[in-house]
Amino acid sequence: MSQYRTFTAADAVDYARQYGGVANPTSLVDALEIGDGNLNLVFKIFDTEGVSRVIVKQALPYVRCVGESWPLTLDRARLEAETLIEHAKYCPQHTVRILHYDAALAVMVMEDLSDHEIWRRDLVKGLHYPGAAQQLGEYLAQTLFHTSDFVQHPHLKKAEVARFLNPELCEITEDLFFNDPYIVHERNAYPAALESDVAALRTDDELKFAVAGLKHRFFAHAEALLHGDIHSGSIFVKAGSLKAIDAEFGFYGPMGFDVGTALGNLLINYCGLPGLLAPREAAAAREQRLQDVRDVWVTFAERFLMLAAEKSTDTALAYPGYAAEFLKKVWADTVGYCGTELVRRTVGMSHVADMKDIGDEVMRTECIRHCISLGKTLILAAPNVADIDALIARIRQNG
Amino acid sequence: MSQYRTFTAADAVDYARQYGGVANPTSLVDALEIGDGNLNLVFKIFDTEGVSRVIVKQALPYVRCVGESWPLTLDRARLEAETLIEHAKYCPQHTVRILHYDAALAVMVMEDLSDHEIWRRDLVKGLHYPGAAQQLGEYLAQTLFHTSDFVQHPHLKKAEVARFLNPELCEITEDLFFNDPYIVHERNAYPAALESDVAALRTDDELKFAVAGLKHRFFAHAEALLHGDIHSGSIFVKAGSLKAIDAEFGFYGPMGFDVGTALGNLLINYCGLPGLLAPREAAAAREQRLQDVRDVWVTFAERFLMLAAEKSTDTALAYPGYAAEFLKKVWADTVGYCGTELVRRTVGMSHVADMKDIGDEVMRTECIRHCISLGKTLILAAPNVADIDALIARIRQNG
Repeated sequence: MSQYRTFTAADAVDYARQYGGVANPTSLVDALEIGDGNLNLVFKIFDTEGVSRVIVKQALPYVRCVGESWPLTLDRARLEAETLIEHAKYCPQHTVRILHYDAALAVMVMEDLSDHEIWRRDLVKGLHYPGAAQQLGEYLAQTLFHTSDFVQHPHLKKAEVARFLNPELCEITEDLFFNDPYIVHERNAYPAALESDVAALRTDDELKFAVAGLKHRFFAHAEALLHGDIHSGSIFVKAGSLKAIDAEFGFYGPMGFDVGTALGNLLINYCGLPGLLAPREAAAAREQRLQDVRDVWVTFAERFLMLAAEKSTDTALAYPGYAAEFLKKVWADTVGYCGTELVRRTVGMSHVADMKDIGDEVMRTECIRHCISLGKTLILAAPNVADIDALIARIRQNG
Repeated sequence: MSQYRTFTAADAVDYARQYGGVANPTSLVDALEIGDGNLNLVFKIFDTEGVSRVIVKQALPYVRCVGESWPLTLDRARLEAETLIEHAKYCPQHTVRILHYDAALAVMVMEDLSDHEIWRRDLVKGLHYPGAAQQLGEYLAQTLFHTSDFVQHPHLKKAEVARFLNPELCEITEDLFFNDPYIVHERNAYPAALESDVAALRTDDELKFAVAGLKHRFFAHAEALLHGDIHSGSIFVKAGSLKAIDAEFGFYGPMGFDVGTALGNLLINYCGLPGLLAPREAAAAREQRLQDVRDVWVTFAERFLMLAAEKSTDTALAYPGYAAEFLKKVWADTVGYCGTELVRRTVGMSHVADMKDIGDEVMRTECIRHCISLGKTLILAAPNVADIDALIARIRQNG
């Protein structure tokens, strides 16, 4: 095994020549580092024509955050590559292709998606990609079904649970999703004007029980190999195409966590649009966002049930109708985890452009207030939201 | 590491001299094999006075069953020893003490419990051990709480899940509990007169959904390090003492599986008593059994809540009142798994003395019919049985 060293641009070019699967490797001549430098190095590798051909991504042995730094396992490169390789087995059309990875160097070579855009960037502009929501639903259904007990042999499933334990990255989620926003914590960051809204999260018994239950299920319910962080910033889109990337949080967890994270980021955008666009455009984009939420869930649920009917191998779980019963629990989890995503992106430390890009401070504060309020509502209502129609009705009710 | 070889009596004596922790090892001179020879060799090791001092138990590399034989992992000796060692950390008073084990030889040396009796043998006689039910509840609470997300650090918990994956033994449970009794299977064995009762189990949608859900949660819900097979034949008792043994099915699973297995075997006895004792004695013993069921659950639940209040370390799960919310789910699982134990011990292949020892064939068939009926009732009712009083009322209602 090679020893870890931080790649230079020249190292990245050499590596891409070796492992990039390019027909004429010596045509690769240049590298541009495009990562944010906090967590990973991300090099675009260019050929002699100046065309970007592959990506070389390397994990750095630390994460730098607001006011503090801590070491972070290099094993996350292996986890990211292996999660994406697993997901690509079941949904190659919506998973970025990993061409090569090396666990000791914490490096991977993957397909270049320069012709795509990060979904969040365009959601913030109010842009719509027809079919993207359905493609995301398809990705969720294919990856979650095929790594579940419906079809994965119990011996293999148990070995896979061990391969994807991922304690360090899970701990980040455990802290940022389920602890920080509901206690006083220095990592939290929200407008001072919302202090009373946030303080109310810390003392609401019913809310604290619900969040504890969601955290407990995140700890204990190994239902499928999750992406683990499938927000709109981990998704590339272009017309007719959607690709999931950045799966270093991959582990066996509750399906509703992935589905809820996906829906949650569409709803954060929904909450932010009035601050991002002119009123008429915002109203239209919000309607589209609710339609997206519906399309993600409906596509996910329909495809999941279809796969369960066709492909389930477990004697008991294959019984006709059981998958639909199970999906009721996935739905309740989805609504709950969706709510925690809304809260942790506004009260906690990990903020997103859907809120940050709102120029007017008063408007930004109101959008954040709405997002917190909707998140709290969804967490509390999760066990009692009958279906997608009832969810959308509640969202409209909330403002 | 030493290589596996089947122990002779002389090997067992030598081994006990080395690892038995006896003050004067050469006083150990004789061994008697007391296992049933199907799964394990179990040697009692005697000293020069003819007193049994320690037990040497070795796993055999196969299991011999009705009409077939199949290999079974020797790793089960490690799993048994390591589960019992873990449980003894938290409940030494009710866990057999492991003095030494060797994974390669699949052998362990453990304390001798010759002064105890297998609980089932005495339950079949209608005997009562005051305090035994409470001690069992205490064992369940201590072992399940201390290996749960309430108190086990997430990094350790994940490593422990991997240490106790136990795919082969889990598969036995997956098949015998959740598949066989609900399909036509050659391993099943029940009186021909009950064919229509059993056939009804195979076509009841609601029952099949409920059993699939219980199996799914057995697969996916890693709540605590279970004993995995805590029936009355895995429990030694004497006046004032109770000890769990035989933990080779240990793995991280849903707490309700252990609690339900424990309650289920008391209820199998309840169903069998009218065939085992004279009417007046049977009636008194049945009342005692219902009291035992109550005492196991109440002791378990009260101790669990006490431990959760005192010792929970997880920020979210420690929130006052959450443990009681969580116990509602454990309760529903308990009732459901209890029901599957009643069914699999009568319809499936693993029968128990509480039924087998009933001499009169007609009476035996009626007791088995009752047990199947009660099992089915509990599986179906599990999500709606409010509390222990409601459970006992349902049991009485059922006959």
